[in-house]
Amino acid sequence: MPLSADNPRSATPQDHLDAVKKLLAKQRLVEDLVHRQASDDGTRKAAIVESLVHKQNLAELQKRLDGLHPADVAFILEGLPLADRLVVWGLVRSERDGEILLEVSDAVRDTLLADMDSAEIVAAARNLDADEIADLVPDLPEEVVQDIIEAQDVDERARLQSALSYPEGSVGALMDFEVVSIREDVTCEVALRYLRRFDELPAQTDSLFVVDRDDHLKGILPLKRLLVSDPDIEVATLTDRDVASFSPDSDAEEAAKAFERYGLVSAPVVSADGRVIARLTIDAVLDFVRERQESQELAKVGLREEEDLFSSVWQSARNRGPWLALNLCTAFVASRVVGAFEGSIEKLAALAALMPIVAGIGGNSGNQTSTLIVRALAFDQVSAANARRLFAKEVGIGALNGALWGSVLGIVAWGLYHNAALGAVMALAMLLNLVVASLAGLFIPLAMERFGRDPAIGSSVFLTFVTDSMGFFIFLGLATVFLL
Amino acid sequence: MPLSADNPRSATPQDHLDAVKKLLAKQRLVEDLVHRQASDDGTRKAAIVESLVHKQNLAELQKRLDGLHPADVAFILEGLPLADRLVVWGLVRSERDGEILLEVSDAVRDTLLADMDSAEIVAAARNLDADEIADLVPDLPEEVVQDIIEAQDVDERARLQSALSYPEGSVGALMDFEVVSIREDVTCEVALRYLRRFDELPAQTDSLFVVDRDDHLKGILPLKRLLVSDPDIEVATLTDRDVASFSPDSDAEEAAKAFERYGLVSAPVVSADGRVIARLTIDAVLDFVRERQESQELAKVGLREEEDLFSSVWQSARNRGPWLALNLCTAFVASRVVGAFEGSIEKLAALAALMPIVAGIGGNSGNQTSTLIVRALAFDQVSAANARRLFAKEVGIGALNGALWGSVLGIVAWGLYHNAALGAVMALAMLLNLVVASLAGLFIPLAMERFGRDPAIGSSVFLTFVTDSMGFFIFLGLATVFLL
Repeated sequence: MPLSADNPRSATPQDHLDAVKKLLAKQRLVEDLVHRQASDDGTRKAAIVESLVHKQNLAELQKRLDGLHPADVAFILEGLPLADRLVVWGLVRSERDGEILLEVSDAVRDTLLADMDSAEIVAAARNLDADEIADLVPDLPEEVVQDIIEAQDVDERARLQSALSYPEGSVGALMDFEVVSIREDVTCEVALRYLRRFDELPAQTDSLFVVDRDDHLKGILPLKRLLVSDPDIEVATLTDRDVASFSPDSDAEEAAKAFERYGLVSAPVVSADGRVIARLTIDAVLDFVRERQESQELAKVGLREEEDLFSSVWQSARNRGPWLALNLCTAFVASRVVGAFEGSIEKLAALAALMPIVAGIGGNSGNQTSTLIVRALAFDQVSAANARRLFAKEVGIGALNGALWGSVLGIVAWGLYHNAALGAVMALAMLLNLVVASLAGLFIPLAMERFGRDPAIGSSVFLTFVTDSMGFFIFLGLATVFLL
Repeated sequence: MPLSADNPRSATPQDHLDAVKKLLAKQRLVEDLVHRQASDDGTRKAAIVESLVHKQNLAELQKRLDGLHPADVAFILEGLPLADRLVVWGLVRSERDGEILLEVSDAVRDTLLADMDSAEIVAAARNLDADEIADLVPDLPEEVVQDIIEAQDVDERARLQSALSYPEGSVGALMDFEVVSIREDVTCEVALRYLRRFDELPAQTDSLFVVDRDDHLKGILPLKRLLVSDPDIEVATLTDRDVASFSPDSDAEEAAKAFERYGLVSAPVVSADGRVIARLTIDAVLDFVRERQESQELAKVGLREEEDLFSSVWQSARNRGPWLALNLCTAFVASRVVGAFEGSIEKLAALAALMPIVAGIGGNSGNQTSTLIVRALAFDQVSAANARRLFAKEVGIGALNGALWGSVLGIVAWGLYHNAALGAVMALAMLLNLVVASLAGLFIPLAMERFGRDPAIGSSVFLTFVTDSMGFFIFLGLATVFLL
């Protein structure tokens, strides 16, 4: 995005990170050199050189950081190993600490906060709004939170306490308090004059919230409409009354869908009695969507956001261990199914070679079904009325694919082991396991949804458990009955 | 989101869908009744009754649809089986066809377009902007596209051809042409007067693009700043010159990241010589992000967006078949690895029962690593400089988890089969396979990225292939060497 050569945004965050890395490397080079000289000529001269070049280098780094958007500084901090990260963090102006803490990932935020003392954290919070502080609070020590709350003025403290009272995943946890509202019985001229009293309107303000004398929401007045309208017209005439508004208790996910569906930029948040108390912006919604998506992506393989690229081996292994243990348990049960047929396998070792295919393709096929169902659940497209239709469809596909690929594999097995009966058992087992996989792919997400769990996350463990165990059981069972 | 009882947006799209389903069910009930009566009393009276109730019902449905946002109508169409979907589609006013086609998913769009003749499609396109038509074109028959292009006026045709010339995934494919620009040498007063000549500014207009006499981009003027400023100030004074702008050839994903990072609502798209030619809005960016995410989610299990909940069994099986075939091939190779050790398995059938555990946990562990790497790649956080560190870290975690869970399983196997050597082989195989899995989880996504493939999509097939084959090979190989 070239605008001019000295435009900081024309460089990508990656360019900034590379430049910072280069400066840090230069720094280390100087330090190395000085340390090597130190052992030869004594330390005094070396210390002087070091401190001079050091200072020059650091000043250059600091100047670069000062010119960057907080999101870009966050990107740099996330891209650096811990030692370098803390050097850079030390160079960030303390009045920017707060906004940068808001931008970095959880894992990196923890490392930065660990490097700050209570006074620094309280000072950082002083530059933030109530809703922003509320976002940081879960990562802060209890006593620091108390200090921060006490450092606020009365209004801000009330807002902070209100923002803190809503659980993650609610609109209340995403909303901010930078509301600009206008009475409906004034003219546009008055509205424009009122706006001119602001130094600048809050970010992402695309409309004014139109209220009555008691702050009850009446609708919204889009700025773009205000701008094109005759100043003598009354606000009420231009007010859009068919607007999406949310309660602080609303589900943030539902709100995100509404933002997407209706192309919203900001929307009012109203109390139970219809008063405007806050607003929700596309910025907060987008952050929420991305974070939820990421943590879901990680949770699917048993990871939490606390781990980043540079976490220690020990910390990472602890983070990943429980998931492996869970999978170990399910794999163990599947293994016992095989164990029950050890007699058959001793007689016909080909069974051991073929059984993973039956189990594996069942898992693949079941995952296709469950991915579709999880997606349909997310879009509220599964209902009691169409469940029967889905059931018939998925079982049909399982049977069709099972018959097709079962036949292919049956013929291959026949050719490979010169055993037609083995081929037939293989084909039949594939067919049956793909039908089982379809049913599992359909019912496991539905059951998880019913029991209030996120079907996107745990479905695949259960599914693999079913398709593995049943795949082994069906194949080895059929083989024991028909072949031995 | 309650505002008033008769506010259509206070109901969720699900409520609308339920209401439509109820009306459709009532309709079917009447038809059934009439048909049953018809066989008793002859057809004339029945036909009269049917047509009357029919009409009344349909009128009610149509009225309801007319009041809904296009996105809500799209939601309803997506939630209905084909026959009902076409009934509802027939009731949508033809001037709304275009905007609704834009909102529905690919699979549903295909079914709706199949129900329209060329003239209807051309008429629907007449109500759309050039960039919107360009979004539909990939789904339309060649000759209809020609008709649509010919039906445009000269300006729109040029825009349409420009929009069509950019590939999917570029900014050019997302941009629209509703640019509002202003010269920098005028006063705010003049700017405001200019704006008042519009009936309404385009959706998602949060700033004016400031240009010179030749349409070269100079910066942007946020509407919220224009509103609070003294009318006598020159536009140039208020212009924000540090702005993100994009070229139509820019990567849409990079643009999406910039929107997210800097909280943008709209941004100018400029030609190579710096002229403003179009704009990019958060609405288009959000659609892009969601669609890409969804299609990635589906592609991971070998599905394409062409399949929806109500696709036919045959169509769905064809959609899912190739993925199963690919997995069949890799499973077959893994099976041949086992086949090579059939002699060992005949002698010790316990190997067959234990080998799926080694392979399976390897797959789980490798998927954890590759998920982290894929995510880091998406955020540009993997570089040559930190690759070595990542390598050491991932191998360390693999070894640590392998030693831990390998020991656990080794002891379990020992206890189960009263064979200490078997337990030791099991433990060693787990350790080795988890290290292999770490390496595979690290290098497979990096290699895919290097070869220009999306690492999020294909990584898991390759990974499972490696962890299965190597898991079987390591375990059975060690067992053959040390146990037999």
